[in-house]
Amino acid sequence: MGKEITSREQDYSQWYNDLIIKGGLADYSAVRGCMVIKPHGYTLWENMRDALDKMFKDTGHVNAYFPLFVPKSLFEAEETNAEGFAKECAVVTHYRLKSDPNNKGKLIVDQEAKLEEELIVRPTSEAIIWNTYKGWIQSYRDLPILINQWANVVRWEMRTRLFLRTAEFLWQEGHTAHATKAEALEETVKMLNVYADFVENWMALPVIKGVKTPNERFAGAEDTYCIEALMQDGKALQAGTSHFLGQNFAKAFDVKFTDKENKLDYVWATSWGVSTRLIGALVMAHSDDDGLIIPPKIAPVQVVVVPIFKGEEQKARLDEKVNGIIKELKALGVSVKYDDNENQRPGWKFAQYEMQGVPVRIAIGARDLENNVAEVARRDTKEKQSYSLDGIAEKIKTLLEDIQQNIYNKALAYRDEHITKADSWDEFVQLLDEKTGFISAHWDGTAETEDKIKELSKATIRCIPLDNVQEAGKCILTGHPSAQRVLFARAY
Amino acid sequence: MGKEITSREQDYSQWYNDLIIKGGLADYSAVRGCMVIKPHGYTLWENMRDALDKMFKDTGHVNAYFPLFVPKSLFEAEETNAEGFAKECAVVTHYRLKSDPNNKGKLIVDQEAKLEEELIVRPTSEAIIWNTYKGWIQSYRDLPILINQWANVVRWEMRTRLFLRTAEFLWQEGHTAHATKAEALEETVKMLNVYADFVENWMALPVIKGVKTPNERFAGAEDTYCIEALMQDGKALQAGTSHFLGQNFAKAFDVKFTDKENKLDYVWATSWGVSTRLIGALVMAHSDDDGLIIPPKIAPVQVVVVPIFKGEEQKARLDEKVNGIIKELKALGVSVKYDDNENQRPGWKFAQYEMQGVPVRIAIGARDLENNVAEVARRDTKEKQSYSLDGIAEKIKTLLEDIQQNIYNKALAYRDEHITKADSWDEFVQLLDEKTGFISAHWDGTAETEDKIKELSKATIRCIPLDNVQEAGKCILTGHPSAQRVLFARAY
Repeated sequence: MGKEITSREQDYSQWYNDLIIKGGLADYSAVRGCMVIKPHGYTLWENMRDALDKMFKDTGHVNAYFPLFVPKSLFEAEETNAEGFAKECAVVTHYRLKSDPNNKGKLIVDQEAKLEEELIVRPTSEAIIWNTYKGWIQSYRDLPILINQWANVVRWEMRTRLFLRTAEFLWQEGHTAHATKAEALEETVKMLNVYADFVENWMALPVIKGVKTPNERFAGAEDTYCIEALMQDGKALQAGTSHFLGQNFAKAFDVKFTDKENKLDYVWATSWGVSTRLIGALVMAHSDDDGLIIPPKIAPVQVVVVPIFKGEEQKARLDEKVNGIIKELKALGVSVKYDDNENQRPGWKFAQYEMQGVPVRIAIGARDLENNVAEVARRDTKEKQSYSLDGIAEKIKTLLEDIQQNIYNKALAYRDEHITKADSWDEFVQLLDEKTGFISAHWDGTAETEDKIKELSKATIRCIPLDNVQEAGKCILTGHPSAQRVLFARAY
Repeated sequence: MGKEITSREQDYSQWYNDLIIKGGLADYSAVRGCMVIKPHGYTLWENMRDALDKMFKDTGHVNAYFPLFVPKSLFEAEETNAEGFAKECAVVTHYRLKSDPNNKGKLIVDQEAKLEEELIVRPTSEAIIWNTYKGWIQSYRDLPILINQWANVVRWEMRTRLFLRTAEFLWQEGHTAHATKAEALEETVKMLNVYADFVENWMALPVIKGVKTPNERFAGAEDTYCIEALMQDGKALQAGTSHFLGQNFAKAFDVKFTDKENKLDYVWATSWGVSTRLIGALVMAHSDDDGLIIPPKIAPVQVVVVPIFKGEEQKARLDEKVNGIIKELKALGVSVKYDDNENQRPGWKFAQYEMQGVPVRIAIGARDLENNVAEVARRDTKEKQSYSLDGIAEKIKTLLEDIQQNIYNKALAYRDEHITKADSWDEFVQLLDEKTGFISAHWDGTAETEDKIKELSKATIRCIPLDNVQEAGKCILTGHPSAQRVLFARAY
């Protein structure tokens, strides 16, 4: 039968790791902090990538590819950005190995092949990209540039967790260049909305759109917009960010353009990204103690059909019927796997697909065939129901839509129940410890207070929601006046 | 008007660089030997990738992702492979930068953040993958593993050329694990055939399928199968390779499995890859002195429509008609761009799209509209023809198919004219110098002779064709007996 998973109640963190490993999404690797994304996890990422990529293209963006390495002198050009990432940089210093004279068959770094200038493995690509844009932009006619890149990046994190925080991860990073501040700001918000649309409507995960405080901004940004999601343990997770970079990178790399009035000005910039971290969010938000729950719209396989039979004659009859149903499902755009592997028993398969989060399982035996029915089990609620085989494909398609909606509704209800107002420090800490979730509270607007709150409670300001109500109040820590509540939470 | 391109006759090598840069495929970068793939080039790569990816999936493969870095101790485990790549390895030695105490705002490598074990930036992933497979394979039930990876790799080449040879490049690498030698051999040849199918039927480039001599094998392979194409300057280009790795990596990483008879054996392996180098091949094989020629099936844009008008009223009437045609073309699966940018004149646009290799250009003016016609220009032959607007979409679709076929036929005729037999050394050298192309000649089968021929003529044995005729003869260099001719060429 299925492999054991630690329950959420027992150990939430271990439950998460179990799901990733036993659900076949990823595996640990021999490289510190790096993971292997297994086929099931990678197909999930492909589905997410393809949906996002289409949204990017529909909003006028094109893909390109920039070098993995950033020469140190470019990397340090935008100082705030460079300082922000300096402590997490993998650095290439040599370009050759040679045989170890003292150890036959082994290799050592060839000290004669030392680079004149060290290369940083990109933790993010603003520097290399803005250095390139310098050569592409002369006039307003060259603007806007709306480029996205799908790539791997490396940030040398000390504490890593599968998907949530890995030294190498996969992501996309949009880097746009504009003639005006207004246009760049519009782009920043547009892409935040694209992310929110994707995470809510494809990943079935409700998000709060907001702006980061200066403390939590991307290094080198003038403003960082974000979407924040809530996990089942009441901790928040930043699911995507969109940065208004002002003219910071244009100034660092001297990227100017001639406007329509023939005046020279620095170019305005945005950047925005989401990563394989989203898979971690997906797992933590929806899954249960039996395994993964994956929303149908991005599931690697939406429907699995398990035949139950004895002997070749029964199998042949099942095959004929099932192949017809599969054909109909595929014609409706539903992805289906027919698992007629005879090496495993149906019960083992049921547990396996539950673990992997396949949204719908159809089991069909010889007797079902006689009765013209099949047993349909949905992964999200674990309900089973007998379906007539007549028109079953259409009904499954509708069921998949129901499941998508149900997963979203469940996450939304949980999230909405977990936004709580706190009006005093004691209440704030008690809510964080006992109820968890987002705490809506007044803050005096200073970085010092923000730091102090973080130090005392481990909660950070997740964001100032975009649609925030203006409301006079007093800071929960200092009692100083405040013009609005902000959202605090402990976070991943 | 269009930007100047060096002609092939004048300077073939410069012609190639001009096409890449001015055709908008790629740009030089600030990183030695690395390039920026621009949107036009990246879209081409996406189209190639998507077609190949479908072929891989149709043959039962799935995608996964393995770490960018390979710890040195793993890298050196398969000694032949490690030796083969040791001289081209980018090596990460540190994981942190810090502020330079002597130079405000600058960063230096933090010497305290030195890695205990150096990390190699993958030049190929056999080592990290087989180290992972060790944990995934116990029994024959775990086999075969049919995994492909789309990734960036780094090989520190001393002489680089856009697309053809860059320090970092994008590729796919298939890594499969099998229970039997026969099955692994079958996989090796199957993927060679997939590559040949793709390069011939999508890239319109005829290839010769063959086996490499031991000298030219992939480091760590028992046999390397390849497809070889011919460029317009008569030089050959290796377009893809598929390796039978025997049990070499299984032995290096101790990957054993229990077979059906409960006996332990090492696992059999293959690996196979094609890269962005294919874009270089595409450019060199088909293009002309006016710019790129891209086969319709992988073209970033298949059809461009250029309206010719004065005033808004003419434009409005053109828009209405053209939008209808575009809708019909899209319904037929044809990608179309409507370039109604008023900042550029039609003539400039014509030259621009010719440069970029858009297969079909439709120009339509106010008078054309009255006559119910449009001017259709095909990029490959540069023929122009007036088409009735009635049913034009269907006719364009057929035209695209004709263009695809014509580009292939032209390349095939050139290639076939450039396979020549040589029966003496003098004839061999003269053919290489004057006629160029593949020279079919006898070789005594020794590595020494192969090296000597390379040294004297700069020609290498491209392959022993799979369907090679057995024919007794004498080696063109040594006169020693030979059982078959092999294909020599000067190569990229």
